[in-house]
Amino acid sequence: MALIVQKYGGTSVGNPERIKNVARRVAKFHAQGHQVVVVVSAMSGETNRLIALAKEISAEPDPRELDQVCATGEQVTIGLLSMALKEIGLPARSYTGGQVKVLTDSVFTKARILSIDDANLRLDLDAGMVVVVAGFQGVDADGNITTLGRGGSDTSAVALAAALKADECQIYTDVDGVYTADPRIVPEARKLDAITFEEMLEMASLGSKVLQIRSVEFAGKYKVKLRVLSSFEDEGEGTLITAEEESNMEQPIISGIAHNRDEAKLTMLGVPDEPGIAYRILSAIAEANIDVDIIVQNVGHDGSTDLSFTVNRGDFAKAQGILEKVKTELGARQVAGDNRICKVSAVGVGMRSHPGVASKMFKALADEGINIQMISTSEIKISVIIEEKYLELAARVLHNTFGLDQAV
Amino acid sequence: MALIVQKYGGTSVGNPERIKNVARRVAKFHAQGHQVVVVVSAMSGETNRLIALAKEISAEPDPRELDQVCATGEQVTIGLLSMALKEIGLPARSYTGGQVKVLTDSVFTKARILSIDDANLRLDLDAGMVVVVAGFQGVDADGNITTLGRGGSDTSAVALAAALKADECQIYTDVDGVYTADPRIVPEARKLDAITFEEMLEMASLGSKVLQIRSVEFAGKYKVKLRVLSSFEDEGEGTLITAEEESNMEQPIISGIAHNRDEAKLTMLGVPDEPGIAYRILSAIAEANIDVDIIVQNVGHDGSTDLSFTVNRGDFAKAQGILEKVKTELGARQVAGDNRICKVSAVGVGMRSHPGVASKMFKALADEGINIQMISTSEIKISVIIEEKYLELAARVLHNTFGLDQAV
Repeated sequence: MALIVQKYGGTSVGNPERIKNVARRVAKFHAQGHQVVVVVSAMSGETNRLIALAKEISAEPDPRELDQVCATGEQVTIGLLSMALKEIGLPARSYTGGQVKVLTDSVFTKARILSIDDANLRLDLDAGMVVVVAGFQGVDADGNITTLGRGGSDTSAVALAAALKADECQIYTDVDGVYTADPRIVPEARKLDAITFEEMLEMASLGSKVLQIRSVEFAGKYKVKLRVLSSFEDEGEGTLITAEEESNMEQPIISGIAHNRDEAKLTMLGVPDEPGIAYRILSAIAEANIDVDIIVQNVGHDGSTDLSFTVNRGDFAKAQGILEKVKTELGARQVAGDNRICKVSAVGVGMRSHPGVASKMFKALADEGINIQMISTSEIKISVIIEEKYLELAARVLHNTFGLDQAV
Repeated sequence: MALIVQKYGGTSVGNPERIKNVARRVAKFHAQGHQVVVVVSAMSGETNRLIALAKEISAEPDPRELDQVCATGEQVTIGLLSMALKEIGLPARSYTGGQVKVLTDSVFTKARILSIDDANLRLDLDAGMVVVVAGFQGVDADGNITTLGRGGSDTSAVALAAALKADECQIYTDVDGVYTADPRIVPEARKLDAITFEEMLEMASLGSKVLQIRSVEFAGKYKVKLRVLSSFEDEGEGTLITAEEESNMEQPIISGIAHNRDEAKLTMLGVPDEPGIAYRILSAIAEANIDVDIIVQNVGHDGSTDLSFTVNRGDFAKAQGILEKVKTELGARQVAGDNRICKVSAVGVGMRSHPGVASKMFKALADEGINIQMISTSEIKISVIIEEKYLELAARVLHNTFGLDQAV
């Protein structure tokens, strides 16, 4: 008998019929003698509907009240799923974040979980009940309802699994696992049986949308055994996300190729080569709440230097406007920008012990005539910025170069 | 400076534009220096939408989970209204029933309020904030979310007014007050400036749908000054509902004529005239959860008697089926029924000190050739059951007979 936390996203509970399907899946695990905690999102479209209502009232809705409104989406789902479970004979009880209680800080719309009280859940589980918990939400010390931000239900599930010391946290989604690359772009992409937390983190941050980043961080920190599975298939083991030391298999050098189309590049040309220049440019960008990804500063020559960085494509115009202002203040020569670029990355813990991965990657791209505009590396990933039109080609070439189409 | 509790129903908060209108109305009172607590219902249609979802999952949804689902309707409205208030510069904070907390018993879907903690609300009010509370809901001692049943938001408002010792509880609705009769039937009907709790109770129980019965009981018990107003008009004092002893005016004998079309009559003919017969018939009806209104047992003759009673028209067929079974057990002669009847009532605390009201009423009906089938009286009302086709005529005749078209 195991204790399993299962998380079902908005698509998996998108209508009453699908909710009944989830109930049947839960019943299967329950019948096998497992204790099951189910974490659910709002029915698909519901959170957007609620936000749209709020936007009709106020262009910038008060964050506390927005959370008060948006938290209802998951509350509806937990009630409906519990009804569905009882309807097929399973004792079940639903819990809002506040009822659990999932204590968070008071940063409305993007709160962080501080602690989880598992007392009531344990009593219910020990009594043979299925426990259904609203994802995405909690309550602060003053009893205000908070939400964890988009995708926060993954984090709720992992945090509950950690608090309950669950044997496994299963994230049911509309894909059947984590792939070596996006199968829509690289037809040879294979589903991975396992991937390390660190790799998954890099994959997520590089644009692979399977899991929310914070949930992976959380799982890594608290050593939660995390598995991604399809909610629309009955078979399949999905992808297990584990700590590196627990992984027995021979590590491949590269585990996957990630990509992100949502990129734009900005360059400030001819900046006086003085201390503090990068700070003055990037702080102006940060003050406008624009996230910066890769930053490259070229070695200065003739007393001036160039600074380039990437932002989300949606922030491109705004960032350009800011740079134009800063340019004048700094006495820089020119602002250049390009929003037709993309990022392609190779990720793998194996590269730690295998030098030469970068040069192999660069050669493969050069052989296809793909020019590399920027490079960013971490211990377990190498990212390159290239022209957007080469995205699919680059992903396929790298997937092939690192032998990802071969089963390990 | 007064402390006012205002309640807005589903139609008044039916869309974002109307919610903004409510915010402007609240702002007007706030600007006059009053402290305002606003109680809101779910947006119109929302509770029905949620119940329909639940019914798709289960023909008889688990009551606890149904409350978990349905309580979200009001939670959305409080968030949206608080945003709207802040948008026009008023400090505001929303509270679910649980956040207040409105403690109820654990009878899901029709819970009763046990106590209200007013501490946080008072702090907010004293800080100059508008407090927005979800009607219709509370929380039981175990932290389960409960609802008070349909129309429960009126009760929430009155209970909050009682707990806060508010100067007035204003119920905003789609009519501008309580009328001497239904204006759609009696064109001369006048809006009443005031009516006593007892009269309002009788009016409500007799089919006048302005206020939920429990809220009037509650207001009477805790001496809450209750006022019914239109949320679609800016002028008008509505109708004040007061304790009799507080009313200074000369009481009219009759305050209003109420009617209810939703009636059906059943008669068991030729029942052996023995003790316990009424109990045996009516307990069978009660076991089927059918509410009985008027009961009349004729004096027995030749060893047998007739028992008649009225039920909601929707329960007519079911009740008839039950009586057919009971008939055989009791050895009664026949079951008769009529679902084309209605009830017309004259209500007024003045009739306590004015004998002869009943005979005046019966004469007026007889003069029009309207046959009275059943009669039921209380200290302050007289109801008659008549053929449904005479409903409008009877209401107009009685309205005229008691001079209700004359301003007092």
